[in-house]
Formats: sequence, C-alpha cells, structure tokens
Amino acid sequence: MSVFMQDLSQARSAIEGEFDRIFAQLGQEPVHQAMSYACLNGGKRLRGFYVLAGAALHDVDPARAIGPACAIEALHAYSLVHDDLPCMDDDDLRRGQPTVHIKWDEATAVLAGDALQTLAFELCALPAVGAAEVRADLTLSLARAAGAQGMVLGQALDIAAESADAPLTLEQITALQAGKTGALIQWSAEAGARLAQADTTALGTYAQAVGLAFQIADDILDVTGDEAKAGKRLQKDADAGKATFVSLLGLDGARRRATSLVETACDALSGYGDRAESLREAARFVISRES
Amino acid sequence: MSVFMQDLSQARSAIEGEFDRIFAQLGQEPVHQAMSYACLNGGKRLRGFYVLAGAALHDVDPARAIGPACAIEALHAYSLVHDDLPCMDDDDLRRGQPTVHIKWDEATAVLAGDALQTLAFELCALPAVGAAEVRADLTLSLARAAGAQGMVLGQALDIAAESADAPLTLEQITALQAGKTGALIQWSAEAGARLAQADTTALGTYAQAVGLAFQIADDILDVTGDEAKAGKRLQKDADAGKATFVSLLGLDGARRRATSLVETACDALSGYGDRAESLREAARFVISRES
Repeated sequence: MSVFMQDLSQARSAIEGEFDRIFAQLGQEPVHQAMSYACLNGGKRLRGFYVLAGAALHDVDPARAIGPACAIEALHAYSLVHDDLPCMDDDDLRRGQPTVHIKWDEATAVLAGDALQTLAFELCALPAVGAAEVRADLTLSLARAAGAQGMVLGQALDIAAESADAPLTLEQITALQAGKTGALIQWSAEAGARLAQADTTALGTYAQAVGLAFQIADDILDVTGDEAKAGKRLQKDADAGKATFVSLLGLDGARRRATSLVETACDALSGYGDRAESLREAARFVISRES
Repeated sequence: MSVFMQDLSQARSAIEGEFDRIFAQLGQEPVHQAMSYACLNGGKRLRGFYVLAGAALHDVDPARAIGPACAIEALHAYSLVHDDLPCMDDDDLRRGQPTVHIKWDEATAVLAGDALQTLAFELCALPAVGAAEVRADLTLSLARAAGAQGMVLGQALDIAAESADAPLTLEQITALQAGKTGALIQWSAEAGARLAQADTTALGTYAQAVGLAFQIADDILDVTGDEAKAGKRLQKDADAGKATFVSLLGLDGARRRATSLVETACDALSGYGDRAESLREAARFVISRES
C-alpha cells in the first residue's frame, strides 16, 4: 500500500474515533443522530487527512490536530446535508445511503447541518488545539473559507448558474469552484502550518492546485464514472446542460489540465523534501479516484 | 427617555452602522442581499445591547465590543431565517415584512442563514476584538450556546414537542426554552465580562433569569398581543395545542413568574451598583414590551 493510502486510512480511523467520542457526548435526540449519521457515512476523509498530514509535516502533536481535522469534516458534512435538501440539489442518495432529509425529515436536516457548522467552530476553538493565537487564527480562517466569500458564495453562484441565460465561461466556473470546493481544501492543507504558526505559502499553493484538479476530476467522473462506485447519481451536470470543465475543455483537455495542476501541486512542496511524499501521492490520487 | 431606551437606541445605531459597513464589502449576489435584509429588518437589537452594555460595565472599549454585538445579532438572524422556512415554522412574515424564502427562494434562505452563522464566528475572531485568548473564548462559548447542546437543541425539542403524544411539562418547557432562546441571551450578557477577561457569574445569573422571563413574556404576548404591533402571527401556539408557560401557569401565574425572575435578574447585578441601571431597566422591559 502507498504511503498516502496508509496515512489516509490512519487519518480515517483517527477522525472516526474522535467523532464517535464527540457524538457519544452529544445526546440521543434525532438531530444528534442525524449529525452523527452525516459525519460517519463512509467519506474518504481527504480534508481531514490534509489537516493531519500538514500538521505532521510541521511536527505538530496529532492530539492538537485531530480537532481541526474533525472540524473540517463536520463543516464538509454540513455543506452536503444542506446541499442535498429538496430546495437545493434534491438528492435522495449520498454514498449509496439515504440522505439526511430522506432518513429523517427536512427540518432535522436543516438543524443537523446548522449544528454541524457550529461544531466545526467549536472544534477549532477547544483548548486542546493549542495556543489561543492558533485557535483564533484557525477560527477566523475557517470562517472566511466557509462563508459568503468562500464556500457559500460558490454554492450560490452554482445555483445562479442553473437559471443563467448562457453557460458559464471557464473563468467563471474556475471562480465558482474556487469557492465551492477550493476554499475548504485550501483551509485543510494550510491548517497544519497554522497549528505550527508557520508560513502557509507552500501548502496554500499546493492546495489551490489540488482543489482545482479535484473539481476537474469530479467533472470527468460525472461523465466517465460508474454510479455504483461513485454512490451517487452521475451525468447530472450534462443532463442539466450546465457548463463543466469537461464541456469547456473537452475530456482530453480536462485530463491534461488536471495532470498539469497535480504537477504544480507536487512542485510546491519541494521545500519539505521526502517528508511531503504522502501529500504528493494525495495530489495524484485526486485525479485517479473512481468516487 | 429612560437610560435603557437611550442605550438601546445607541446600540441599534452602532450595530446597524457596522452591518452596513460589513455588507457593503460582501458583494451583491442574492445571497449577500438576503443576509443584509435578514440582519437589517428592524429588530430591537436586545442581544447586541446586552453585549455592549456588559462591555461598558467592564470599561471595555466599544470598538472591541461591536464585533461580538454584531456576531450575536447575525447568529440570531440566521436562526430566524432557518426557523421561518416551510419545513420549520413556515412563516411568510417577520416583523411585518416578507421572510427571506418568500422574498427570494428557499435555497437562498438556507444559504443566507448558513453564511450568517459563519459571519457570527468570523466577527468574534477578528483581531479588533482583542487578545487571542478573548477571541478564542468568545468563539468557543458562542459555539456551545448556538449548537446541538444549546439553541439548535432547543429548536429540535420544540419541533419534537409538536408531534409528541402529551403536552410538555413545565420542567420540559423550561429546558427547551433555556436552549432555544436562553443560551444566546446568556452568551450576550456574559460577552462583556469575557471581553474584559472578568468573572461572568453575576451577568450569567442575570441572563438566565432574563432569558426565561423573555420567553414567558413571549408566551403572554402570543395570547394577549396585537398582531400589528408584534409584526407576526399570534396565537399560533394555542392554535397548535402546544404547551406554553401560559397554558401551564395560567396568565396571572405566568405574569407573577416573569416579574419574580426580573427581580432575581436585577438583584444579581447589585455588585455593579448604579452603573448597571440600564441592564436592570432592560430586564423590566422584556416583560413590558408589546412586540
């Protein structure tokens, strides 16, 4: 198994163990069960892996990094729960399982998503994360990545694009995706440097390239993927006539762009030497995955 | 005009001026307009006033307190936008104006609420708020007040009560309201002490009593109020057969309980002497208001 696959598997175990501990303390109301269900639904934990791998690169104690790793996974889970709502993407399945509003109801899905966002900020601010400077910095940067100039803006632009007169241009779709998926990936990759109060430039460059490659790969998967492996409906964008990286660049052009971005990402980590091999493999993984 | 009414009016101006500044920087997408609309819809700003008044009691520079004051108003606004959704309370009007999902659409209401929650945490973590210890403490305490063991839990219990076999007991409804409205009021009143890194006990006792009095007064208003002054549908709880403080204690009993809680609240501030007069008047106001 590659270094990355080993590290990803370890990250997944650590994150899910921490979530088990967190949800055992929360209570047993439907909203608590829905939060746990949304967080523990077989996700790859790539974002949490970036946090833990970036922390390891900077010799940060994993006990300090696990909170922020769970924070970004909780934030990602909240965005999926709300994204799946009937008034948004209206998806019944997520990773092959009923979505939260199907398994419970819409009100529980709205509230569980809301509370998962809150949990993300709580997990960044816990004393175990480290010095107050670090906790305030992680909170502020997460808010900027997740809010109305980051992820939520990307989602809003995505919805607006569906009723727009003309398909988006490459520039517009790149800006949209920088918000919708890029901002959280960037926060994840930079969090390790923030935990160490170190320079975030190299990890930031890595993350911007990986984030865009990730989205291009998603668009490729939407066209070429296997629904059973992906665990969700595919070809949705093509069916809806939406512009995607594939529709704009062609399948080969999209693959070339993604490959070039992965090279950029790997080069950005040269200062870390061999220690960054797991993150380099992670960058290659995002364009080779099947789900 | 009373000291409290003067201070509340000043707080409202300061908070709305700060929101104007914040929203001017955000952008002009529908989600941004909806966030601004939800935050600037003529609210009383009681929660923001508590933050500013508590800060003044501890000689905290108002320039440090305005961020947390806007934070709690943004968080409150988010909870109202999501609460008004068709899958929750399904309200078309809020303070006499169309609710966000009526004026825009449900997707925009979900996203605007989400981004207002994010904004609340950003505003607590900004450098202008003060030392990193203070910012991390405000963030952590806000997350605990707003999340699945605070406000969201209260909302979830409220929804569960609607389909319960039996009306709630006084103990259950007190626990529900301690989450649904009490947790944010408590955070608001304690924030000034947190900004000064001072003991929060007196303001916390004040806030617990005021928060419960506030909810009892809401239940009284729901029965005796004027819809035009309240700017929303009344008698909803009675029509729905839900237990309220009025149905459990009777109208006179509810009024006596609220009055007694206001005395408890005022007494808790004795250590602050005359400087706390505005907060004492605020406590009396919550049971005399008409909206």
